[in-house]
Amino acid sequence: MEPTSRVPIVRVPGGAADDVVAVEEPLEIRVADKPVAVTMRTPGDDEDLAAGFLLTEGIIQTASDIESIRHWGSPNVVRVSLREGVRLDYARLQRNFYATSSCGICGKSSIDALRVFTTPVESDVRVGDLSEMAASLRLQQKSFDATGAIHGAGAFNAEGAVLRVREDIGRHNAVDKVLGSLLRAGERADVLLISGRASFEVVQKCVVARVPVIAAVGAPSSLAVELAREYNVTLAGFLRDGRFNIYCGAQRIR
Amino acid sequence: MEPTSRVPIVRVPGGAADDVVAVEEPLEIRVADKPVAVTMRTPGDDEDLAAGFLLTEGIIQTASDIESIRHWGSPNVVRVSLREGVRLDYARLQRNFYATSSCGICGKSSIDALRVFTTPVESDVRVGDLSEMAASLRLQQKSFDATGAIHGAGAFNAEGAVLRVREDIGRHNAVDKVLGSLLRAGERADVLLISGRASFEVVQKCVVARVPVIAAVGAPSSLAVELAREYNVTLAGFLRDGRFNIYCGAQRIR
Repeated sequence: MEPTSRVPIVRVPGGAADDVVAVEEPLEIRVADKPVAVTMRTPGDDEDLAAGFLLTEGIIQTASDIESIRHWGSPNVVRVSLREGVRLDYARLQRNFYATSSCGICGKSSIDALRVFTTPVESDVRVGDLSEMAASLRLQQKSFDATGAIHGAGAFNAEGAVLRVREDIGRHNAVDKVLGSLLRAGERADVLLISGRASFEVVQKCVVARVPVIAAVGAPSSLAVELAREYNVTLAGFLRDGRFNIYCGAQRIR
Repeated sequence: MEPTSRVPIVRVPGGAADDVVAVEEPLEIRVADKPVAVTMRTPGDDEDLAAGFLLTEGIIQTASDIESIRHWGSPNVVRVSLREGVRLDYARLQRNFYATSSCGICGKSSIDALRVFTTPVESDVRVGDLSEMAASLRLQQKSFDATGAIHGAGAFNAEGAVLRVREDIGRHNAVDKVLGSLLRAGERADVLLISGRASFEVVQKCVVARVPVIAAVGAPSSLAVELAREYNVTLAGFLRDGRFNIYCGAQRIR
């Protein structure tokens, strides 16, 4: 499946024409024979998305927890086999899904369950020019160029070299694709940059994946700022025209 | 709680300053004593959000299904009491949560479950100038002015008069707030206009609420277009600078 598709439209003013839209399709993620999630995503890098999702939801901890990831009977289903001995913690699974999916019927029904339970991110990395990284990300957002409607996420090292860029109609999916791809390759990012806003969930995913610097072209939310402070993650926002705001952790920005 | 809050930042270039961010806090929605959802939302109009959520998830059908909605022990919990005799269909609840929450562990695990099961929207309404409606919506997005980071949704009648405007950090929540407010007041919208993109889920919510025309300042996704076609809903996108694209149902645009 392609990440974009062409549809007939009526332009006002103008008349009949064609437009390119971002493809949105459900992806079912299975662990062994158990479906654990359906997410609306843009097709492409589905294996990375599944790996990143399992990592950032706390279901797996390392790449070696995964034995294989493959499409399974449909381009909209991926099946993950875990290494023998890796136990799927269904209680944790429930808590996590509850936490991130606005689904209260299957898990513990406390708002406290939203929080990740991990340690602050300790890193004394100092990273380079965030504005240059934003320019690099923008240059690689191919599907955005075509549709004007798709989120981009990029991983960078401290010197500003691009490690990964991924696009998806869902902001969280773009982040999971990047983090999943790095996990599978045994790499780590110093900076995670997103084309849109930084929500609680974006920060939570980066905390779990131990990324020390998060930068957003858009604005952060109040809870994103709180969580970043609490877990000692650097958070920058409004990366535009060579300027940006640092909401916490300024010591990691050169 | 306020919809925005002030945080200390470091501007680059510039130095220490203050910034206003959109508040993001979890809201737990309970039906009687059963928590049915937690959603990350901007505080305000929580009763409308709960009503709209229950409507657009297919859990209630009419305003009279609701006996009361009130905060319950916390500003982040609302409790909905249903009228005596209204049975909560837990199978449906599960299907719906599964459908919209990327949560597969609590419901039927089929991608087919994503679809709403309702009839096409039959309406021969013809609506006025969508660009003027977009300008009206923009003028009323007060929290967006302060933060640059919050979605707006507006309901309009066919003549373009504003019925409701609501803002939320979550696009779907902004839509639920508008639709819930209309439901509780016994009103109907001819047009639902959103400040961002039109996803599958936005179209699904409008189909369930029987809104015949959806217009977005941003782009629609492929699945939003498919769903709108299937349920005979008019879908317009890229409402900018007096121009827009009609993806289906052009006969309802004057």
